[in-house]
Amino acid sequence: MRLDTDPYLSRYALRVTGMSASEIRALFAVASRPEVVSFAGGMPATSALDMEAVEAVVAGVIRDHGALALQYGGGQGRPELRELLLDVMRHEGVPGHADDLIVTVGGQQALELVAKCFIDDGAIVLAEGPTYVGGIGAMASHRAEVRHVPMDDDGMDIDLLEEALAQLAAEGRRAKYVYTIPNHQNPAGVSLSVPRRERLAELAVEHDLLVVEDNPYGLLDFGGRCLPSLRSMIPDRVVYIGTMSKTFAPGVRTGWIAAPGPIRDKLVLLREAADLCPSNLTQMIVERWLATQPWREQIKRFTELYREKADVMLASLEQEMPPGVSWTVPAGAFYIWLTVPAGIDTSDLLAKAVGRRVAYVPGRGFYADGSGGEQMRLCFSYPEVSRIPEGVSRLGELLHDELELVQALFGDHAPSPDRRPGEPASGVGG
Amino acid sequence: MRLDTDPYLSRYALRVTGMSASEIRALFAVASRPEVVSFAGGMPATSALDMEAVEAVVAGVIRDHGALALQYGGGQGRPELRELLLDVMRHEGVPGHADDLIVTVGGQQALELVAKCFIDDGAIVLAEGPTYVGGIGAMASHRAEVRHVPMDDDGMDIDLLEEALAQLAAEGRRAKYVYTIPNHQNPAGVSLSVPRRERLAELAVEHDLLVVEDNPYGLLDFGGRCLPSLRSMIPDRVVYIGTMSKTFAPGVRTGWIAAPGPIRDKLVLLREAADLCPSNLTQMIVERWLATQPWREQIKRFTELYREKADVMLASLEQEMPPGVSWTVPAGAFYIWLTVPAGIDTSDLLAKAVGRRVAYVPGRGFYADGSGGEQMRLCFSYPEVSRIPEGVSRLGELLHDELELVQALFGDHAPSPDRRPGEPASGVGG
Repeated sequence: MRLDTDPYLSRYALRVTGMSASEIRALFAVASRPEVVSFAGGMPATSALDMEAVEAVVAGVIRDHGALALQYGGGQGRPELRELLLDVMRHEGVPGHADDLIVTVGGQQALELVAKCFIDDGAIVLAEGPTYVGGIGAMASHRAEVRHVPMDDDGMDIDLLEEALAQLAAEGRRAKYVYTIPNHQNPAGVSLSVPRRERLAELAVEHDLLVVEDNPYGLLDFGGRCLPSLRSMIPDRVVYIGTMSKTFAPGVRTGWIAAPGPIRDKLVLLREAADLCPSNLTQMIVERWLATQPWREQIKRFTELYREKADVMLASLEQEMPPGVSWTVPAGAFYIWLTVPAGIDTSDLLAKAVGRRVAYVPGRGFYADGSGGEQMRLCFSYPEVSRIPEGVSRLGELLHDELELVQALFGDHAPSPDRRPGEPASGVGG
Repeated sequence: MRLDTDPYLSRYALRVTGMSASEIRALFAVASRPEVVSFAGGMPATSALDMEAVEAVVAGVIRDHGALALQYGGGQGRPELRELLLDVMRHEGVPGHADDLIVTVGGQQALELVAKCFIDDGAIVLAEGPTYVGGIGAMASHRAEVRHVPMDDDGMDIDLLEEALAQLAAEGRRAKYVYTIPNHQNPAGVSLSVPRRERLAELAVEHDLLVVEDNPYGLLDFGGRCLPSLRSMIPDRVVYIGTMSKTFAPGVRTGWIAAPGPIRDKLVLLREAADLCPSNLTQMIVERWLATQPWREQIKRFTELYREKADVMLASLEQEMPPGVSWTVPAGAFYIWLTVPAGIDTSDLLAKAVGRRVAYVPGRGFYADGSGGEQMRLCFSYPEVSRIPEGVSRLGELLHDELELVQALFGDHAPSPDRRPGEPASGVGG
């Protein structure tokens, strides 16, 4: 695991924590050593793929359709692929039509195109707090103002969303969209409950809202459950984002958007301006994977592996963490969101952690407003199962030592780096 | 050849010609028929690749490095690939260092990232007139004002560039950058002469200008000549863009930017926001292609094929075109820029041309300001050699018929759709 090839612990994520470019470079240099156990990267376990099958797929694409696979394609993506992506959506109960789909360079390009389509200087977006660092990155690169809506174990707090909408109305302003990752959220590791989905859908109608439903993890539920998509509830108000990065492989850089017709048309034009067209080669590889390989079984294999890793990490956390540390309990996917006791700042702590050969992403990377100093994201999907207890143990020791230091310095009056008076802490794990 | 998979004849290109969405759809439907000879798509002849070699390359990447190839990578692109891309640049005499390079999704993403980095609402860019439709698309999508500098057979007219700079100074404004395709320009098919490159470099220093040097075609010179790059003259003022799309294959969607350090750092952050990272898989395919295959010989093979096609098209044009039609004579790459007599509008003519089973891109697609109504781009790189005379003959007959109509209607006083009084026609082929 090399941190410097880890897009989730990107320069962007660290820059928002206030680290300088040279600090980031130095940290990358140390953290890329093999003795570091990294819980930083939100990376799938690609080594769990059937490589012989993948090799046959890629060779077959060139052998049977080489000239086409190596040529330019259309901006919306191949109709053949879009049809097959509907199967992936259907596997999760998400409705769609191939005409509504745009193939993108992973989910990230989808977030970028949606941001470019809707955001101008200072436009407001409502998003879960915390939320995906790359989502913040795409929106911030178009100079959006991201306002966070706190979460708890049932996902975004819809009462607080309603308050945020009332506040906007009082300011005479509107949100361009609500950005949500309803399933096994990155980084919080929780899902939006069904009653809250229903209330969100009602609020969207009531307030004439657009909802961006980002769903990379829906098929990775440890119990095989699928919660109803927002797209199935209010299709005309939802821009839905899917990706093959977690169910097949990030290396094919294949995601997609399903959007109402007028939005889809604008997004296709923006996509052509952004990079002309998706790769025919990687599209045809995904097509052949979906058409000829047991991809549903592969997803099951991934999910079982991640469940095992989650269990090991949760057991290790129980054993190793000092009192006052809390964390979310994921029911799927990749992430645990951990809250440290007041007085410890996870941005400041990262360099020490890497020095002790364990890495994570500081919580501030997942907020646009500087909060998250008491949180960190732990990702269990990529490291070998056998190395997880070792990494958690190193982190536990570090937190024990830090807590002693804080208590020696401040006694029971430890300062809080984030919380302003009267402001609640993040509901998730807080 | 399917027009609807032709990114150069994109919806964008046609939309700027004033066609409605439904007209464009109808045209695509007809033009995708196999009996249509298309000179529209700026597509390389990927069928001239050694497919057995490509198959061995892609299979080898999965066999030897599957888990890595299918994983996420870093935002700047793989260091191994960046080193090998330097060889491609060196083959053309362009200097560089792997640290300066950013791997992009083809040249188009490079244009998008540069536009996003430098352009805000109403910012001014100076560009050749005509220029690459995708360059206009990227800049327009960030709401740039593109001002064209006319060209002649030696490329951009530097006297007129100097005039444009003086005009800007008089307005108290500055150009964010000068966008140029110095070699075998798309769509004009001409190259910037060496004395003009030297003057452009001097002007850049004098006026503190940034130059975006877009070079997809430099290695496709029919005589094997390479003109000195602007990057070699004024490296600190040039953002250089390269691509493997024309020397290997568009399907790998691999281009790159070479930029001075501070600009490179900004572009990497924007790239991460745009799509996280380039595909490890396609990067490793390009690496293996460059490291193990005779890619210089493949470029020679491509170039010989394109020279043959250019010769056939030029001979056909001599034979088939009515008096008053003129065109540029390319010394490399893909394109001929053709000017029709006054009174004919190439946007209006396209539907008739497709009805007669020949297609091109109307000249207006290559201007941001509505000019180009008397021009069209003919691309000879993709159609089979044997079909080129047939296509040119159909176009010649159509122009004969149109000219008769114009002369019957207007006599010698044919209207000009573009030229305003006192304004010179485009120098290229005009």
